[in-house]
Amino acid sequence: MIGTVSRLPSPPTDAARPGDVRLRGFPDLAPLGLAQDWVDRHARLGAEEVPVEAAAGRILAAAPRAPADDPPFDRAGLDGYAVRASDTAGASPYDPVTLRLVEGGDRCSGACAGLVSAGAPLPPGADAVLGFDAAQPSGATLEVIAPAAPGAGVDRAAAQLRAGAPVGAAGARLGPREVALAAALGIARVPVVARPRVRLVVAGPREPAARDAHGPMLRALVARDGGEVASLEVGVPLATALARPPEGLTPDLVVVTGRTGTGPDDLAAAALAAAGEVVLHGLAVRPATSAGLGRAGAVPAVLLPGDPLACLVGWELLAGRLLRRLAGLDPALPHPTREAEVCRKLVSTVGFVEVFQVRLVDGQVEPLGLAELGGLAGAARADGFVVVPAPLEGHRPGARVTVHLY
Amino acid sequence: MIGTVSRLPSPPTDAARPGDVRLRGFPDLAPLGLAQDWVDRHARLGAEEVPVEAAAGRILAAAPRAPADDPPFDRAGLDGYAVRASDTAGASPYDPVTLRLVEGGDRCSGACAGLVSAGAPLPPGADAVLGFDAAQPSGATLEVIAPAAPGAGVDRAAAQLRAGAPVGAAGARLGPREVALAAALGIARVPVVARPRVRLVVAGPREPAARDAHGPMLRALVARDGGEVASLEVGVPLATALARPPEGLTPDLVVVTGRTGTGPDDLAAAALAAAGEVVLHGLAVRPATSAGLGRAGAVPAVLLPGDPLACLVGWELLAGRLLRRLAGLDPALPHPTREAEVCRKLVSTVGFVEVFQVRLVDGQVEPLGLAELGGLAGAARADGFVVVPAPLEGHRPGARVTVHLY
Repeated sequence: MIGTVSRLPSPPTDAARPGDVRLRGFPDLAPLGLAQDWVDRHARLGAEEVPVEAAAGRILAAAPRAPADDPPFDRAGLDGYAVRASDTAGASPYDPVTLRLVEGGDRCSGACAGLVSAGAPLPPGADAVLGFDAAQPSGATLEVIAPAAPGAGVDRAAAQLRAGAPVGAAGARLGPREVALAAALGIARVPVVARPRVRLVVAGPREPAARDAHGPMLRALVARDGGEVASLEVGVPLATALARPPEGLTPDLVVVTGRTGTGPDDLAAAALAAAGEVVLHGLAVRPATSAGLGRAGAVPAVLLPGDPLACLVGWELLAGRLLRRLAGLDPALPHPTREAEVCRKLVSTVGFVEVFQVRLVDGQVEPLGLAELGGLAGAARADGFVVVPAPLEGHRPGARVTVHLY
Repeated sequence: MIGTVSRLPSPPTDAARPGDVRLRGFPDLAPLGLAQDWVDRHARLGAEEVPVEAAAGRILAAAPRAPADDPPFDRAGLDGYAVRASDTAGASPYDPVTLRLVEGGDRCSGACAGLVSAGAPLPPGADAVLGFDAAQPSGATLEVIAPAAPGAGVDRAAAQLRAGAPVGAAGARLGPREVALAAALGIARVPVVARPRVRLVVAGPREPAARDAHGPMLRALVARDGGEVASLEVGVPLATALARPPEGLTPDLVVVTGRTGTGPDDLAAAALAAAGEVVLHGLAVRPATSAGLGRAGAVPAVLLPGDPLACLVGWELLAGRLLRRLAGLDPALPHPTREAEVCRKLVSTVGFVEVFQVRLVDGQVEPLGLAELGGLAGAARADGFVVVPAPLEGHRPGARVTVHLY
């Protein structure tokens, strides 16, 4: 279907087959913004609690509170000798102060010192820690050659965090630091956004000998965008599959690929209509013109074209956006971006959002073909893609554009 | 140990305990470059074959070859009618050409047309595909109102890729596009860099009541840097654990955290020396000064400080670098970076690489404390970190620095 959207008046719609585009072409195409609005309004976030060890990479649904101060008590900030600072006043290499050495945690009465390791609780009575460069042991005594200020070498209780303070912020991704902090504070479980379960229904290739390329691609995209694959059904009859999902399957999102075009066997939209609702079918986006949106039962569903590049573009702009929203991630395109200058014209049609696969050659943007061309081999050679908005005729050489980098 | 590195002459080394820093301090500290050189020389990559469905995110060890042309045959590029272009010459809305309609794959003899879907093989005899806007069926015939050029609407065999061409490049990460292309070409298994198996040995917190924060943090870092956790052993006696690894464990990297400093119970370096070799212990890096490198048996081993922030910094600069190399990834710091202006002085000591946790406030870099301060709560509030090289005294307000963003 790619590249064939009629710009001529379309043939009259058959009243018996409203919305059926087969053998006709799309009577009209929805603007991308309309489709994205629908996506944005149909994402409901779930939440679950997971053990802190398994929480890295997840999105915090609500900030847990520190159950205790951090540090929970005054703590040695370095390896050395815990002392009472006032006992060390005036110490110097020429006039050392001699302190009695006591066992680690023992209370110090009178002028004494105790060996401590960084992180260990400060022994009662001590208010400073001297490093090994400021004191040397000599039998049962310690020769102090530099004075300690009160509090020196001590990590004060609650200096890092007070009990009750929020740990992280709702909506933030938990990284190595955050899970370590939560674990150190004794927070065993954290509330995170549930991973959306995605049902993938792949119509399967038209030639029996051909291999399914969609399954591997969509699995990778689901994982990238924060979801998990609830099922992957390849080569199933679409009407049956959508009307009667596998027993016990409760997905948060259904993605159908293939059979979305205008050919005689393009049954995806009709199958979705029968299983729920088609909200729109046909998008003013190249290549992904035959994409659609709707519901299978009560579950949001996205129809993606069978051409693998069009499928990828439809994923990035629609299905991926919906999944990223469901997963609590930024719904925008997840690729790193770079501004660069166009070195060969990008020719686009007004009224269509066009997605160009491009290479960066000496820092300049070179399109790999027209946006309406499908196929993955070209896309696999691309460094990224450029999205030309609907109102533009393209970009001239010299124009600066945003490249989304693969 | 953090913050206590002696700048004064160190006490004489006890001949009976060479290299032992306990109760003494580090006699000298290795430059970071030296440690990173060792890391770079001790990473050996393994390779394995994985099914293409499981290959996304992995690093290609060698580029597979396309087993066939892509497309394997001339293919309809759009939904429409397959025709012989010469039969449509001169067709217009005022002077349509009438063709006989035949079944899908049938050979066309004489002036005829066959309905095809995008992606289907072009029927024998046809050399172009007309879209539905250029032709309308009327019973058993087709009215063509626009001429087709030879090859129009056809995806030519091998246009995307020739049999034998490499698919991807060794060292490149396989994304959704690449796995889809390989799968479409019928490549069932791909050679990828093996995921390094990491043995994590955590000395455990000094206070019995405290929770292990290292395990969750290190698990997240191992996953981020392309490895998998072969074992996580928390609170084990280090000497025994390193000398006698669990039965059947064959890690590619051993990471020990805690007990690396100068306190009396800092046994990590001695345990590693007994189990293999300590190559260096003590690094001119703040905070991560007590880090070390060596071998447990024949396996590269990294010692990381027990303070969780120092542990994190040591991971980023040493253990993570070694793991990223073993995993075939870019060994440089994996964080996205941004150039920004310093708004409050970063004070660093010449001779030390210092890592500052910073916030970005109105686009300017504000340090959250001295580089030698430990603790995660501050780091968890940071937007990123700044690495001040050893030759510098720091950065003045107004200086432009690279921020590594969390």
